[in-house]
Amino acid sequence: MQIRLSELAENMGLTLRGEDCLISGVGTLESAGPDDITFLADPKYAHLLEATQAAAVVVSEAHAGDVERALVSASPYMDFARILMMFNPKQGCLEGQGVSDQAYVHPSVELGEGVDVYPFAFIADGAKIGARTKIFPGAYVGEGCVIGDDCTLYPRCTLMAGTTLGDRVMIHPGAVLGADGFGYIPTDEGRVKIPQVGRVVLEDDVEIGANTTIDRAMIDRTLVRTGTKIDNQVQIAHNCTIGEHSTIVSQVGIAGSTTVGKNVIMAGKAGIADHITIGDNVIVGPKCGVARDIPAGKKMGGHPAVDYGIYMRSLTLAPKMPDLFKRVRKLEKQLAALESGGQGENNE
Amino acid sequence: MQIRLSELAENMGLTLRGEDCLISGVGTLESAGPDDITFLADPKYAHLLEATQAAAVVVSEAHAGDVERALVSASPYMDFARILMMFNPKQGCLEGQGVSDQAYVHPSVELGEGVDVYPFAFIADGAKIGARTKIFPGAYVGEGCVIGDDCTLYPRCTLMAGTTLGDRVMIHPGAVLGADGFGYIPTDEGRVKIPQVGRVVLEDDVEIGANTTIDRAMIDRTLVRTGTKIDNQVQIAHNCTIGEHSTIVSQVGIAGSTTVGKNVIMAGKAGIADHITIGDNVIVGPKCGVARDIPAGKKMGGHPAVDYGIYMRSLTLAPKMPDLFKRVRKLEKQLAALESGGQGENNE
Amino acid sequence: MQIRLSELAENMGLTLRGEDCLISGVGTLESAGPDDITFLADPKYAHLLEATQAAAVVVSEAHAGDVERALVSASPYMDFARILMMFNPKQGCLEGQGVSDQAYVHPSVELGEGVDVYPFAFIADGAKIGARTKIFPGAYVGEGCVIGDDCTLYPRCTLMAGTTLGDRVMIHPGAVLGADGFGYIPTDEGRVKIPQVGRVVLEDDVEIGANTTIDRAMIDRTLVRTGTKIDNQVQIAHNCTIGEHSTIVSQVGIAGSTTVGKNVIMAGKAGIADHITIGDNVIVGPKCGVARDIPAGKKMGGHPAVDYGIYMRSLTLAPKMPDLFKRVRKLEKQLAALESGGQGENNE
Repeated sequence: MQIRLSELAENMGLTLRGEDCLISGVGTLESAGPDDITFLADPKYAHLLEATQAAAVVVSEAHAGDVERALVSASPYMDFARILMMFNPKQGCLEGQGVSDQAYVHPSVELGEGVDVYPFAFIADGAKIGARTKIFPGAYVGEGCVIGDDCTLYPRCTLMAGTTLGDRVMIHPGAVLGADGFGYIPTDEGRVKIPQVGRVVLEDDVEIGANTTIDRAMIDRTLVRTGTKIDNQVQIAHNCTIGEHSTIVSQVGIAGSTTVGKNVIMAGKAGIADHITIGDNVIVGPKCGVARDIPAGKKMGGHPAVDYGIYMRSLTLAPKMPDLFKRVRKLEKQLAALESGGQGENNE
Repeated sequence: MQIRLSELAENMGLTLRGEDCLISGVGTLESAGPDDITFLADPKYAHLLEATQAAAVVVSEAHAGDVERALVSASPYMDFARILMMFNPKQGCLEGQGVSDQAYVHPSVELGEGVDVYPFAFIADGAKIGARTKIFPGAYVGEGCVIGDDCTLYPRCTLMAGTTLGDRVMIHPGAVLGADGFGYIPTDEGRVKIPQVGRVVLEDDVEIGANTTIDRAMIDRTLVRTGTKIDNQVQIAHNCTIGEHSTIVSQVGIAGSTTVGKNVIMAGKAGIADHITIGDNVIVGPKCGVARDIPAGKKMGGHPAVDYGIYMRSLTLAPKMPDLFKRVRKLEKQLAALESGGQGENNE
Repeated sequence: MQIRLSELAENMGLTLRGEDCLISGVGTLESAGPDDITFLADPKYAHLLEATQAAAVVVSEAHAGDVERALVSASPYMDFARILMMFNPKQGCLEGQGVSDQAYVHPSVELGEGVDVYPFAFIADGAKIGARTKIFPGAYVGEGCVIGDDCTLYPRCTLMAGTTLGDRVMIHPGAVLGADGFGYIPTDEGRVKIPQVGRVVLEDDVEIGANTTIDRAMIDRTLVRTGTKIDNQVQIAHNCTIGEHSTIVSQVGIAGSTTVGKNVIMAGKAGIADHITIGDNVIVGPKCGVARDIPAGKKMGGHPAVDYGIYMRSLTLAPKMPDLFKRVRKLEKQLAALESGGQGENNE
């Protein structure tokens, strides 16, 4: 991939300051070489502009004068993301080749126009695959799954029976949608499995990270709404609902039947209890342990989860805990001395 | 799937109160439609009986009069689970078709009666597969694995060499049994791998969740005993033993050579140290961090793990920690004032 | 596998004390049978020597007299590890058979000498595979991946486009290298995906555990340096660098753009924030939550992370927290009584 800087500017509607040149890659301010383009989004890195080797920088008006060649942008980060799209490495070497004869596609499957099914993918009875959807090697699409248009099912992802995806859904490698929810009835002869007859539904523009698991509902559905992005190794248990445009970072776990609102952000490794409700626009901090409902708009941190301000203070206080025990012990001694009529002593 | 309510009642030995009708699905009290059956197990949801659209409700004698059509049951939850079984979505569109010619089965493999091997499954040298076991697409069964009767190996699950399963074991997609335990000897030239020559053994009726990993032993075996249920994304390290009928919830991690008793419950994200012993009937709370042995019957919570009662109190106390530091500071000032002969002051 | 004890001693340069015999397996001091060899590395288990059934014991000079047959070693653990190598169960029943005709290898792929590609493996356009590398069933090697000599890609592991491995790298089942990093720009119309155009690079002798995920960089690379060992279900986000000979235990998560030094040890379930630096030789305790830089050589524990000594004390203090609140309350009452002129009282 090579493109003239002037052509890039024109395509993107940006102003070029400086001489034209050929761009063949991308980099950070520090890593970019003399044929690369880079960007400055956060002014705190402006000191790196002087030393960068980059051919050109996507930059705001304020910093356009600091570099040899600038693409002047009102949103340098967003415009650089658009440039990245052009340099995105291709994934999928059989694009446009349709259904591989090394794949298994049940005769009853309905395939939209332009669908690619790679070798070793398996599509079961009654599934429907929307137009231009790509199904990579080793992906498994179970009975009656319904998959929208322009979806990507990366290698080894697994959709058990009845899973339903909207349009433009992207499932990263190894993710498992629709495995049985974890439900048993304890009896004297051991635990009896409760059949999990529901399914998993993802709406449009959802993205699911590598090796993430979302369990099918016991009845009804486990639901992830439009635009929500889920990172790697997240666990979402049966019958949860995750609202629109939420962001769930790696290794979060959400227990059964919990409802999460829209625009929620959950940082890495947070754990959310079952049967609770997390309101819209809530932010849950890293490693946070949430056992109760959180009203809309709150920011929480720590385990147990507390108001984020208190959590941030606890980061400061934690190293002082042993000392606090000593201070209380000292107070007790001093007070005992006072009460017994003597003068309190400072030496412990 | 459609069934007459009267036929359902007769099959299950339950009493029908109300007119007969046709049942074609299941739902919750809130989600069930006019052709669905639902249930009431917990009386706290009894207020939903009035508004439910369900055709019929599995319900105890006490509430049978509150609905138009009741299946009267002494164990509504258990009986509803039995009904769910009938509505369980089918997984596996090639049932009864034997070994696919798109699978790889080494000539030395012993296959029991009625085994299904789906396309792209791989079964290595010397493996034995019990009767009626189903091996889904992309499953891997390594050298010398021994698998019992009526097992289910869902798509992409991986059993490395020597893994042994009892009867009726269910392995969900992406689970990995028998990968190398994590053992090295540090040397001046880096870490030297300790060969992991043991294996993984699961007894009868064990269920393993999606993307869970259980490592092979360094020597001997990593063992999960009869009836134990393990959720998604659990990690069990080499040489652990998990006792009978235990329940291990999602994202728990158990470090090497730890022994867990029977009927133990570990809630989500708990972390258990290596070389310790967890007694029978122990309950470990969510996100709990366990560094020491726990005697039988104890319930623990928090990180570090403490008695559950103390943990529950800590949920209340955590938000008050910053304030506690302030209170101690104030006490110190007051006491200093007292000791210097003056009157303690209330303003800090 | 059977070997004479005298032959074993000679091969390894160890001294045999006692009569020769045939060895056919390995065990612990407790589990070894009469045809097995075992070892004593830690003197605290010396009391088990008397009762062991083992045919022979690899043991230091100091304990050689305590057993019937000894292989005397200056490093019993290391020498036993070398013996384990001989008893290592074979993984891979098609060794030496080259490329399976049930695999997919793009015509442009360069294969080194002695490469094995198992059925249902997929190797995309432009990949290069070094000599003697083994690619197990269901592994996926994306466009332009470069894999060194003597690597092992176990079943179902997934290397997305551009992933680069050094020599002797071992990837356990289900691991995913090079899935997209988790990066979005929030806008009024939802989150816009930032293309992740970088890649994943693992240097020589790296080992990656089952179902671990390492994301491709946004630009440049996510890097794991020589000799580093990573356990199961670890998550490493985009643009991280992990230094040489580090050890990262199961279920650790490291957020984006963080730099980890060499010889670092991270215990299970630790969580490391983004954009921070962890110095060389740092030890991070189990379940530790690290939000800030850690200088070289420090040992940290707890969440929030504190000095390990303080963390160890907090393990003791945590159960006493509710009592501490009571003690402070009592002090406040006593002091109030004193200040109001009366005598402090001991009853709360």
